[in-house]
Amino acid sequence: MPAPLFEAVPNFSEGRDQTRISSITEALGAVPGVRVLGLHSDPDHNRSVLTFAGGEDAVLSGAVGLARACARELDLVSQSGEHPRMGVLDVLPFVPLEGATMDDAVRLARRAGEALGLLGFPVFLYGSAATAPHRRALPDVRRGGYEGVASRLRDPLWKPDHGPETLDPHLGAVAVGARPFLVAFNAFLDTDDVEVARAVARRVRESGGGLPAVRALGFGVGGKAQVSMNLTDFERTPIPAALEAVRSAASSLGASVESTELAGLAPLEAILQTARYYLGLRELEAHHVLETRLYDPSGTRSSYTC
Amino acid sequence: MPAPLFEAVPNFSEGRDQTRISSITEALGAVPGVRVLGLHSDPDHNRSVLTFAGGEDAVLSGAVGLARACARELDLVSQSGEHPRMGVLDVLPFVPLEGATMDDAVRLARRAGEALGLLGFPVFLYGSAATAPHRRALPDVRRGGYEGVASRLRDPLWKPDHGPETLDPHLGAVAVGARPFLVAFNAFLDTDDVEVARAVARRVRESGGGLPAVRALGFGVGGKAQVSMNLTDFERTPIPAALEAVRSAASSLGASVESTELAGLAPLEAILQTARYYLGLRELEAHHVLETRLYDPSGTRSSYTC
Repeated sequence: MPAPLFEAVPNFSEGRDQTRISSITEALGAVPGVRVLGLHSDPDHNRSVLTFAGGEDAVLSGAVGLARACARELDLVSQSGEHPRMGVLDVLPFVPLEGATMDDAVRLARRAGEALGLLGFPVFLYGSAATAPHRRALPDVRRGGYEGVASRLRDPLWKPDHGPETLDPHLGAVAVGARPFLVAFNAFLDTDDVEVARAVARRVRESGGGLPAVRALGFGVGGKAQVSMNLTDFERTPIPAALEAVRSAASSLGASVESTELAGLAPLEAILQTARYYLGLRELEAHHVLETRLYDPSGTRSSYTC
Repeated sequence: MPAPLFEAVPNFSEGRDQTRISSITEALGAVPGVRVLGLHSDPDHNRSVLTFAGGEDAVLSGAVGLARACARELDLVSQSGEHPRMGVLDVLPFVPLEGATMDDAVRLARRAGEALGLLGFPVFLYGSAATAPHRRALPDVRRGGYEGVASRLRDPLWKPDHGPETLDPHLGAVAVGARPFLVAFNAFLDTDDVEVARAVARRVRESGGGLPAVRALGFGVGGKAQVSMNLTDFERTPIPAALEAVRSAASSLGASVESTELAGLAPLEAILQTARYYLGLRELEAHHVLETRLYDPSGTRSSYTC
């Protein structure tokens, strides 16, 4: 069985200067055991989002290497852009993948928080790694950006979890957290009436009294009504549960689901969960999938008989 | 995307002598890129079945190493046992896994057939790799074991595909083929009446006019009626289709499916297929599963941005 795997999704405050972006990305990619999965830069926001993954120690080393590169390459004083930010490395969430639990991701987030604190970053732990309930929601941690964080520093409720208790205006602060994988799942209805999709979305989403950990909106896409969902915790509301709720709501409005799509990647566990749900399987784990027995992220071939 | 992967399931004619079995298994495991997944030895049959996997070239090298070890360690003249056999390495099927097609597996089987022929084995290609329709079915190729093969050698219809046209009684011949992954899938009914399970099995299996590439039997397992299925080609009859047929047949007999299980491993494609079927996904391929992007069977870490 492969070692527990994690994803990390650092957001850093440079989206225009390709040289600096490359330097930061290369510092991450140079860390053994790190797999860089994607980079998205937004010049208007002057912000980039990197996605990388690997085992716990590799991801931690990658995070530290990335943070050092951001401290070296970027200066918050000279940054400006549409997206409010509180630091050169602004947000760093960790996500459990196959073989890892949320507790594992929280541990990793806290190790990273301590390491970044030792590098001189004031660190606020958020999400599942938060050290108090009022710090769980990222918007609350980041409110007001650098100026907001600076104004709250004297408040005992907003003392950094790690690192200095003063802000360096060139570096800023960083929010480090743990959260589940976000699954983007869309359902296309057999109607072009966007209002139907909007009504379905209002019914199924958590904010409308629907399913927990589900955000949903209705759109028109290519002439078809589409219910676009973010499943922010597929252990609480699995993909099948979201789909069945959409089917049910659509049916009551005289419509049905014609097809669906996953926008982006899905974790293996979400796919296994789907198969377990519909087949009524007593169990289905990663190690039951033959191809998982052929891979070892450290690259070591192992041979065994059973 | 990882390189195409294959499984191979050699059956060799030794099930008692642990020293010989180990020597043969170790010769296989020593080949770089080969992952040995299992070994089952049967002393009554005096036969063993190894399961291994890897990329095409590694699996080919593994097969050649295994064949040489069998020729060195075993002697058909001194073998006896309940299971009819035609050679020291008796049967060698190749199975396409993630990223490989049946055509790929046929190519691999034919490369292996040629290589084993050069080693001095008379080779009969069977299954999807057969060079004529009458050779497709393994029971027809092996009928009568060594003696049966020897008696058919003069018949142009039964000339070996590779290797010598005379049999060495110490070595025998080998059947080399390509077939789909066999999925073992069981459905537990909400009744203890085994006759219901038998009736359902008769209705859903191919030999009863049911679904193609499905074998099924009814059993009593732990006090519950169980429909036990072998899906011999899940591209023709996917797991969901088999389950829906069982649900339908059971329902007409006043029973329902309580739970299911996969006995043994399942290929990733069968799980993806199941999710596509029930979710109505426009597409779902291996590369959409995040964890597949973290693994490289050659052990080479790759880093890229998108």
